[in-house]
Amino acid sequence: MNLEEAIIATDQAMLDIVESDVPVLQEASEHIISAGGKRVRPRILFLAYQSVGGIDLERAVPVAAAIELVHTATLVHDDINDHGKVRRGRTTVNEKWGRTFALLTGDYLFTKVYSLMAPYGDLNVSFAEATVALVEGETLQAAAVKNNTLNREIYQQIVAKKTASLFRAGAMLGAQLADAEQPYVDALGEYGFFLGLAFQIVDDLLDIVGDSTLMGKEVGVDVGQGKGVTLAYDAGNGHSGESIGVVVAELDDVDGGDPFQAIKRKLIEGGAIEEGRRMAEALIVQANQALDRLPPGPAVDGLRDLAAFVLERQA
Amino acid sequence: MNLEEAIIATDQAMLDIVESDVPVLQEASEHIISAGGKRVRPRILFLAYQSVGGIDLERAVPVAAAIELVHTATLVHDDINDHGKVRRGRTTVNEKWGRTFALLTGDYLFTKVYSLMAPYGDLNVSFAEATVALVEGETLQAAAVKNNTLNREIYQQIVAKKTASLFRAGAMLGAQLADAEQPYVDALGEYGFFLGLAFQIVDDLLDIVGDSTLMGKEVGVDVGQGKGVTLAYDAGNGHSGESIGVVVAELDDVDGGDPFQAIKRKLIEGGAIEEGRRMAEALIVQANQALDRLPPGPAVDGLRDLAAFVLERQA
Repeated sequence: MNLEEAIIATDQAMLDIVESDVPVLQEASEHIISAGGKRVRPRILFLAYQSVGGIDLERAVPVAAAIELVHTATLVHDDINDHGKVRRGRTTVNEKWGRTFALLTGDYLFTKVYSLMAPYGDLNVSFAEATVALVEGETLQAAAVKNNTLNREIYQQIVAKKTASLFRAGAMLGAQLADAEQPYVDALGEYGFFLGLAFQIVDDLLDIVGDSTLMGKEVGVDVGQGKGVTLAYDAGNGHSGESIGVVVAELDDVDGGDPFQAIKRKLIEGGAIEEGRRMAEALIVQANQALDRLPPGPAVDGLRDLAAFVLERQA
Repeated sequence: MNLEEAIIATDQAMLDIVESDVPVLQEASEHIISAGGKRVRPRILFLAYQSVGGIDLERAVPVAAAIELVHTATLVHDDINDHGKVRRGRTTVNEKWGRTFALLTGDYLFTKVYSLMAPYGDLNVSFAEATVALVEGETLQAAAVKNNTLNREIYQQIVAKKTASLFRAGAMLGAQLADAEQPYVDALGEYGFFLGLAFQIVDDLLDIVGDSTLMGKEVGVDVGQGKGVTLAYDAGNGHSGESIGVVVAELDDVDGGDPFQAIKRKLIEGGAIEEGRRMAEALIVQANQALDRLPPGPAVDGLRDLAAFVLERQA
């Protein structure tokens, strides 16, 4: 089984585990799973597994499926809170089945993560930690938006918790599944962490300057809700520490009253997008440096390619 | 550590595990946990543990906390879907912190269940199964209400999944923590299952005839939403298989246009409440019969007392 076969097997494992005699749960789960996605977290896990000598990718498939399913569960719940209408080029579960079933589908996916992870003993500890951090990150974000306190420092906490923690766990779990020694587990965890930070920053930049057709979702949603953009805006305009709500209010009268267009123009003109990209690039350098502590080989090369992809992706 | 000390320790374990540097998650979690509740599921687990020779109740505390926390997580999410305003005599998380934070608090509690269960290896398998069934039961209920298809058969499926599965798991986990032999694990599982069915039926009856002050929540909420009452109504009126929506529509013109009062009067006059109670009593007999397969002792007596309490409780 090669990497692409393992990714296909991961998708199949997710589809298999969500089978249910309750039709709406199975249908809504299949809807979001089969919409695809980049499967970045499973890729990290598989490559980390191989990079420390793991041979049988099939062994790692259930854990890869679990980590992607955690991510998927949070997407379903995010779309409730954000009123997102399109995700991965499809109608969101919330839009198609309504809030009650979206909430229950997210819960269902969470419980299925348990089912997948149940046989994996100690691996559950770091898995659980990452999942807790993820929800904490989402909550920090919601609180910062609500209280209008989002600034660069809080943004970094949010990104670390909501995205980097699960990337880190994926890399570490891959290593642990191959019974890697602790220094290798730690190096891969560091790689995952920095990669996750860069990934989320790029994601937030794409929310501003991305193409909605390529993205498979609406752009500007996060900006409109006061999320994501802060880091980039701060960087370009010296507003560090100032809340995005203030910024949106300031901009509300220009660009035909469309705050998204106004922010976008300001961010581009002020060089903030460029600055955000430079931060992401610096983080990718750090991710790659962590890989220097591993024995070289094709899987480590694969992890470097993945890091390059995270930076270069247009969607 | 005796049973009451173990219950106190369970509450403390729940409070300890929800500590977070994200204030709203900790506050909202503490709000619902410290509101109390009957702690029926932990009691079942502890008594099952003791009934097969378990000595050190402290060993069972984290698992008891996990099972109560799963239940608590679903309450928080239920109150979003049901727009419940009062729970356990307190404002609901949804009412106090709003939907976004209620959703995230429920998710947070789910992730903390993972954390608590992570060290327990194989026990996670039956735990995960019960949690999946719980969400399936909630979903069946929501689907039946939405599609106006709630009838006696579907009601029984719902009750089995959303309540009896977790009661069953609690009893089995208690036995497994004491390394009980399989026939004892099975007998306790059966006890838990029948007890759970009876518990939910009594709960639904109390939603109709209960005292809202004693209950610590609004009564009639489930009836108003077309849930719960079906079994009792069917029993008293021969409407078996007819959906509750039809019944509510029929009754809408009497009792001053208040369908809850109308249904309540009809149910009492038609003997449906009495019939529901007889069903619950029969299930409690079955629960107690399962206990006959265990070595007699004070913990088995405690399980019988718990069964009697489930039937007799007024709130």
